[in-house]
Amino acid sequence: MASKDTQISMSVVRRLPRYYRFLYDLKENGVVRISSRELAERMGLTASQIRQDLNCFGEFGQQGYGYLVEQLYEELYHILGMDRLTPAIILGAGNLGHALINHMNFAGKGVRLDGIFDDAPTLIGKTIHDITVQSTDALETFCTNHSPKLAILCIPKEAAPRLVERLVACGVKAFWNFSHYDIAMHHQDVLVENVHLGDSLMALSYLINQEK
Amino acid sequence: MASKDTQISMSVVRRLPRYYRFLYDLKENGVVRISSRELAERMGLTASQIRQDLNCFGEFGQQGYGYLVEQLYEELYHILGMDRLTPAIILGAGNLGHALINHMNFAGKGVRLDGIFDDAPTLIGKTIHDITVQSTDALETFCTNHSPKLAILCIPKEAAPRLVERLVACGVKAFWNFSHYDIAMHHQDVLVENVHLGDSLMALSYLINQEK
Repeated sequence: MASKDTQISMSVVRRLPRYYRFLYDLKENGVVRISSRELAERMGLTASQIRQDLNCFGEFGQQGYGYLVEQLYEELYHILGMDRLTPAIILGAGNLGHALINHMNFAGKGVRLDGIFDDAPTLIGKTIHDITVQSTDALETFCTNHSPKLAILCIPKEAAPRLVERLVACGVKAFWNFSHYDIAMHHQDVLVENVHLGDSLMALSYLINQEK
Repeated sequence: MASKDTQISMSVVRRLPRYYRFLYDLKENGVVRISSRELAERMGLTASQIRQDLNCFGEFGQQGYGYLVEQLYEELYHILGMDRLTPAIILGAGNLGHALINHMNFAGKGVRLDGIFDDAPTLIGKTIHDITVQSTDALETFCTNHSPKLAILCIPKEAAPRLVERLVACGVKAFWNFSHYDIAMHHQDVLVENVHLGDSLMALSYLINQEK
């Protein structure tokens, strides 16, 4: 993923959701305060890395006192923009699209799912999580009315180029891309987060074979 | 993910599947030879990084001549261990498990899916991709007979601790973990690759908000 306007390094941005998750768990477990050393141990980082990361966003915690869990959680909530839901649509309501719609807590990730699109006649008109699946023929009209900023692509690679072009023309600025189509190569001025599940499994296969 | 016996750095391991994907596409498009400079441009890396990465595994390519696409692809195929399929099982045949079983080309990622387990009475006995879903009660017997080395966890976090313990006792050495349960904290001597799709979406939300 490439940020156009990088103040904070991408590796820090990538760690933010992990901090947020760990702090949420601590909060839920009734932990009020935690030292950077203890947080570091739990997260498999170093205490100085944690202090450095969080210093990018302001002054948190006190020397010898640690972080107030709930306060830091709230700060990260705002830093991550969880209070400003980005309007989004999903393209593709097959198994993967379905799994995301059913299991992903979109609102908890700063996203509001407004529309679902698919071209399969068996899916058009069906309702998933209170949203009716529409044909992609309705995409332009929908975008004019609802201005989605994020498109989640759960479509085959072959279908992606034409759809992405239409979405960019409609003002979509960001893609969460499961399609394996290289969006960034063809559209430089949008944000793209690629999810290559296969790469993750393949790296694990490699390591398993190294152990043998 | 942590490797117990790291000769090659994890960041190189993480890039290997990408090289493999790009070379596959080049091969499919009839490209016979490619310079490290051109490959670098396509992949958004530098030519020297590519040479450095590939040098970890031997001598590939020739100065001023570039890489033979098919040959390098074949080499990566062997390096990644795609010729030695790791026996695996999936725990959880809900939407996510289903999506993975239907869409993931396991054999193409070095994995052979041998069993599917779920505790939902509506799923037990169903056949997905020629594999019959079994109750987790059958886990120990199955592991004795089939010795799976990898478990893919598509189960809720709450169900994970007990199941992981049973799987480790059965000789499972690696986990592809969608469950958000922190396996590595409780079992130090297994390989764990966590997939946190929510972190990926949250990082994207952050960047979208930076653009506003």
